[in-house]
Order: sequence, then C-alpha cells, then structure tokens
Amino acid sequence: MDNLLTNGRYRELIRHYRLDEPIYVTRPRMPSLEAYGDCLKHIWDTKWLTNNGLYHREFEKKLSRYLGVEHLNLFVNGTIALLVALQALRINSGEVITTPFTFPASTHVLHWNRVRPVFCDIDPKTYNIDPNKIEKLITPDTKAILGVHVYGTPCDVEAIQTLANRHGLHVIYDAAHAFGVKIGDRSILEYGDLSAMSFHATKLFTSIEGGALVSRTKVQAERIYYLKNFGIAGEETVIGPGINGKMNEFQAAFGLLELDIVDQEMRARRERTLLYRERLADVPGITVMQDMPNVTHNYGYFPILVDPAKYGCSRDELHDVFRACNIITRKYFYPLCSTYPCYSILPSAHKQNLEIAERISLQVLCLPLYGDLSRDTIEVICHIVRNLT
Amino acid sequence: MDNLLTNGRYRELIRHYRLDEPIYVTRPRMPSLEAYGDCLKHIWDTKWLTNNGLYHREFEKKLSRYLGVEHLNLFVNGTIALLVALQALRINSGEVITTPFTFPASTHVLHWNRVRPVFCDIDPKTYNIDPNKIEKLITPDTKAILGVHVYGTPCDVEAIQTLANRHGLHVIYDAAHAFGVKIGDRSILEYGDLSAMSFHATKLFTSIEGGALVSRTKVQAERIYYLKNFGIAGEETVIGPGINGKMNEFQAAFGLLELDIVDQEMRARRERTLLYRERLADVPGITVMQDMPNVTHNYGYFPILVDPAKYGCSRDELHDVFRACNIITRKYFYPLCSTYPCYSILPSAHKQNLEIAERISLQVLCLPLYGDLSRDTIEVICHIVRNLT
Repeated sequence: MDNLLTNGRYRELIRHYRLDEPIYVTRPRMPSLEAYGDCLKHIWDTKWLTNNGLYHREFEKKLSRYLGVEHLNLFVNGTIALLVALQALRINSGEVITTPFTFPASTHVLHWNRVRPVFCDIDPKTYNIDPNKIEKLITPDTKAILGVHVYGTPCDVEAIQTLANRHGLHVIYDAAHAFGVKIGDRSILEYGDLSAMSFHATKLFTSIEGGALVSRTKVQAERIYYLKNFGIAGEETVIGPGINGKMNEFQAAFGLLELDIVDQEMRARRERTLLYRERLADVPGITVMQDMPNVTHNYGYFPILVDPAKYGCSRDELHDVFRACNIITRKYFYPLCSTYPCYSILPSAHKQNLEIAERISLQVLCLPLYGDLSRDTIEVICHIVRNLT
Repeated sequence: MDNLLTNGRYRELIRHYRLDEPIYVTRPRMPSLEAYGDCLKHIWDTKWLTNNGLYHREFEKKLSRYLGVEHLNLFVNGTIALLVALQALRINSGEVITTPFTFPASTHVLHWNRVRPVFCDIDPKTYNIDPNKIEKLITPDTKAILGVHVYGTPCDVEAIQTLANRHGLHVIYDAAHAFGVKIGDRSILEYGDLSAMSFHATKLFTSIEGGALVSRTKVQAERIYYLKNFGIAGEETVIGPGINGKMNEFQAAFGLLELDIVDQEMRARRERTLLYRERLADVPGITVMQDMPNVTHNYGYFPILVDPAKYGCSRDELHDVFRACNIITRKYFYPLCSTYPCYSILPSAHKQNLEIAERISLQVLCLPLYGDLSRDTIEVICHIVRNLT
C-alpha cells in the first residue's frame, strides 16, 4: 500500500475515482417496511415470538416450494444448520474430506463435532473441491465428503456421489451460496445426503441471520427437527441431545417477505454481472467466471482472479487501490482454512497438496455486487481495473 | 385423567372454573411497537441487520450496566452461549458434575462438547445442585462443576467455589433463570468462571431469542467474542475454531427496549407471587418457595410442590385438571435429564443417587406467572388448588 500511495500513477487514479460514500461489497435488498410492520402487529397481538410460530411454519412451507425441495428445516443461522447436519448423520469422530477454499464455518463445524478436516485441493475452473483428488485422501477413518458450492457454482455432484457410493461415505453440501441454483430442472439442494443453507444478511437471500437444512427423507427431517430443538419430541419426552437451532418469528417474517423480492434481486445481479463480464472481458491477467451449461446460476457474487504476472499488479494491490477509492472489495476466500493456526499442522494442510487453492486464494477478489449497485459505479470499478496497470 | 373426568367432584370443579381463553404459563411483556418501529426505520436506513451493529453495541453496554457486570458477550440464544462457555474453558473431554433438575440444554451442551455429564442430587430447599454431594463425584477426569440457578434461586455459590478451588475445577453457571438476581449487592452472574444467560421469549427478560455469557476478565471476554464469531480476529486472521453465536440487530433492539420495562415486569410478578403465596400458604401438601435472606429475587417463576400423600392427589392430576380448565401449567423440570434415554445408562443417573431430584421432579408444577396475569385468574387458580381435594 505504501508503494501504491507513493506511486504517482496510482495516486492520480485514486484522486480521480475516489467516491464520497463507501461502496460495500454487498447490501441486502430490504422488503417493504410497511409489510414488515404488519407482521409485527400480528406478533405483538399474539405475543408469539419464536418456537414454530405462524411465520415460521409459513416461511418453511413457501421456501420449500420456492426452492423445489421436499424436506427443509429452518435454522437460526447456517453454521448451526451445518453443525446439526453432522450430528444428524452421527458423524462425531474420524475424518471428513473438505475444501480449504471456503468461509471458516465449513471447517469449524467439523472441529465442533470432533471430526478432523482433511483438506482436498480444488478445481481451477469451479473453485470447488476437485473430485479427482478426493479418492487418495480416503482412509478407514473417513466418514463423509463435505463440499461447498462456492459462489453458488455447483460442485461436481455426480462425480462426488459416485465416489461416496463406492466407499460408503456420506455427502454433505455447504450450500450457503447456492440459493436458487439448479442443475437442469433439479435444485442443487437435492444432491448429497444433506445441504445446509445460509440466509445471513450478506447473502443474496436473507432472513437477517438464518439458515436451513435440506434432507432427502421425512425421517431425517424429523430427526433434524428434534436436534435443533433440544431433542424435545413431546411435552415429557426428550429423545436425544439436541441444541437450540431455532429460527425466530422476526427472522421468519423477514424471510417470507424476501421470497417476494428475491427474483427481482437475482435479475438485477445478473444484469450487473453481465455488465462486469463485458467490461472486463479483455483485460489481460483478469479472469471472470462464466455460466456453466445446464446450470441456473444465482449471480450472488462477482469474483475475479488477478494474475499478477499478466495483469501487472497483485490482487492485494488492486484491493488496496479500491479501498483508497472507498470501494470495499473482499478477498473471499483468503486465507485458506488450511492455513489457520488450528488446522495448519494437519498433514492435509501442506501447501504442496493444495496448489490450486493456494493460487486462487492469492488471486481472488470479490467485487461489489447487489441489486441496488448503480451501473455508473460498476463502470467506475471496471475503469479502475482496466486502468490500474 | 380418565379417573378425573369420571370423578363427579372434579367434573363439577372443571365445569365451574373452566376459562374460555387459555391462560399460558408465561407471556412476554412487549415493548412499545411504536418504539420498536423507530428502531426498524434506522435498520432499514442503514441496511445493517447483524454483525455487531449499533443496537448490538448499545444493548451490550446498557445490559452490562443494568446487571452490574463488567464483561458480557451477547449471544443468539442461551444454549449457544453455554456451548461456547465450555469451549472458552477448553473443556471438551472428561466429566462435568451437574444437576439433573434442569432444562435439557444444560446437559446437552456437555454432549456437544464431548463431555460426560455426572449427575449430582439437589438440595431439597433450593432445588439446586447440593454442594454436599458433589465431592464424592469428583474423579481425575472431572473438569468442572456446572450449576444451574433454577427458578433464579442462587446455587450455594460459596460452597461450590470452595470445592472447586480445592480440586482445581472450573465453575460454570447456567443463569438462564437468574436475570437480575443478586446476593447482597453483588450480581449472581459474578460468581464462578462463566455464567450463561437466556433471553428466550419464555423468560422474564427477553430479546425474542437471545443470551449472554458473563466472564471475569477482559481476556476471557475477547476470547469468547472470537469463539462466537467464527474465530475471526481481523479481516485476514482466524485464530481458532469459532462458531456463529451472534445476536442480530432485531433481537438487540428488542432487548434494548425490554431493559426499560423489565423492572415493571419484575414488580408485577413479585406482587402476583405474594398473592399466590398468601392464598396457598395453608394448603396441606402444597409447598411454595420463599425468599432467601440477603438475596434479590426476580420472581421469574412460581413453582409449587404437590405432596400427593398430604394433598390427596398427585401433581399430574392437578396438572390435568388445570389443563381441563384451560389453564396451562408446566412440569418444569420433569422428567429429569438423567432419565433421557441418551443419559439414563450413565452410572450417575441411577435413581438411588438422585432421590431428592426424583421426588421434586414428580411433585413440581409451575403455575402461570407474568405481569399481565390478572389477580382474578390467580384467585381462580388458587381456588382450584384449594378445592381439588
């Protein structure tokens, strides 16, 4: 950064493009405050604040329908959903093979279930766990594969399932980014044993904080319901060691109203994505993601890769110039989970096993993307990328 | 119940007292909807829904001041606070000595931290863990004592601390019931290493769902902050395996407004408690709790014990008559945690070790208590208790 600020060319660029108001990497699309106020009136009338209330039941039903899934349990947040996913499958020892290129929650829930993460390198095109590198990591202690649909790009679900079937492993997906994503006509949530979703405020679709766990069977969905509600199966019956993973009525009402506007948000993000792609198509050293055939994307994020050799400056320099221009970009996901002090000593965390993940974590930068982001701001952002070097 | 309904005397009583509208065991005192609406306007303006926002910071500060504690971290709910308490102290194996007479969460969080609960019998007066029975349960594997201030009645904190000091054990309190309780001038939350609070909608003080963890030192409070936020210590630094335990802005704003009305609620509950005590003072076989010297109680619950031999009918029969009268009472805490299938096989779960807890769990019944409960309804409830036998 010191380099940058003393470099005349950068200083000129920053002076020229610096915005008065900060541009955040994302903003939630808010439902109508009036409509939310009507929900609150009902909550105030009934004094029913949580514990499977009216909005919870309604949201769960409508969300399942929207996503095209049969068995869905709402959660207070996505991390607790993922934590419970492992308990639901009784995975509480041994190893789970997972990706290092993800938000810390995906790896930490393994620790909270006493499971050792085994990091697997990622695919250079999708940035998701590379099925071709999974098999050599499977040991007698392996319990499951935990994939993450990073930026909503589907993992290679068929290849992963084939491996899992061959070795008798469970498959769990962290689908925190994958709201509304489909392969053909089928929801991405319908692959694997369980998929955990996040509706955190920074997500495309939000219920303030919130999450859900999608399962394959009614039996599993019932078990998950107990596990997120203290194991309570009746007024005088506790059937197992559950936790409090409940979503409250304020979150559920918010989510319910968001369902009405999420399509609009997704369309707006798609338009902005296409503009970004067009403007950045021919910048040497800058890679943008493209749509995959047969996939319905959700356009939740706009990550680019910055190859310093070809681009002429590093991802970190570009990030810092943006920061100086009052534009907040994010190094999602840097550093890799495998580099956190609590995991870096694991054999699978060695750099040489994770070359692709390492490179992408050093090159990736998520640019601002949300429905209210003005096209003018995107033009400014693209100008900066194009003119920095 | 069949007995009751075919018994002419009971049928007469039920016909006479049955209410048209159900009376619940508790109801939250709602803050002004208008004031809450003002908070929402701010949230809509800033689009800041969670992650240590304005209301979160304000609520944490004002709540600490109200409770008279220095180091407090807000949580999304009390169970996650208790779960994190054990991680904060690195208790993730071995045994913890605890009470079976509590809500399932207190015991389940031990399981989620891979700790074996060791059940200790309770004191027949306070219904809390009996310090005189703790020492013989301590083994080389014991890590901590987990006490619960049931109904807000303080555990024998001095005796427990003496034992803990002698054996080098941690002390954690589940203070879910103990909002505002003091011993002399000192908050009950200032005893032990950590105290976990719950602000669930069924509690005296509520933030919809919610909780807090009170610690002794700034260092500990910082570690807890990381643990509830994925271990994130900076934009590019993750220092340990944290979870998502964050309270959102909608909860924090609610809690902030509740702080203004909780004294009023406590006073109202105290008045209703005194009325109950007066009306039920001389009913043979019915025991009500009394205030303890030097303790500021919060009057969160009104539990009675029903001694069937002296009263003439059982707790379950009384509960069922109330239910038939449209009055919802609760067998808090029946069954004992030690009887859940997942714990009943443990040596410490044997009935003969838990005689007092067993008896009280069979005799206890929490009667409706909340600030808006009419005195007339209390008179009806007390009439039923007095005239059933």
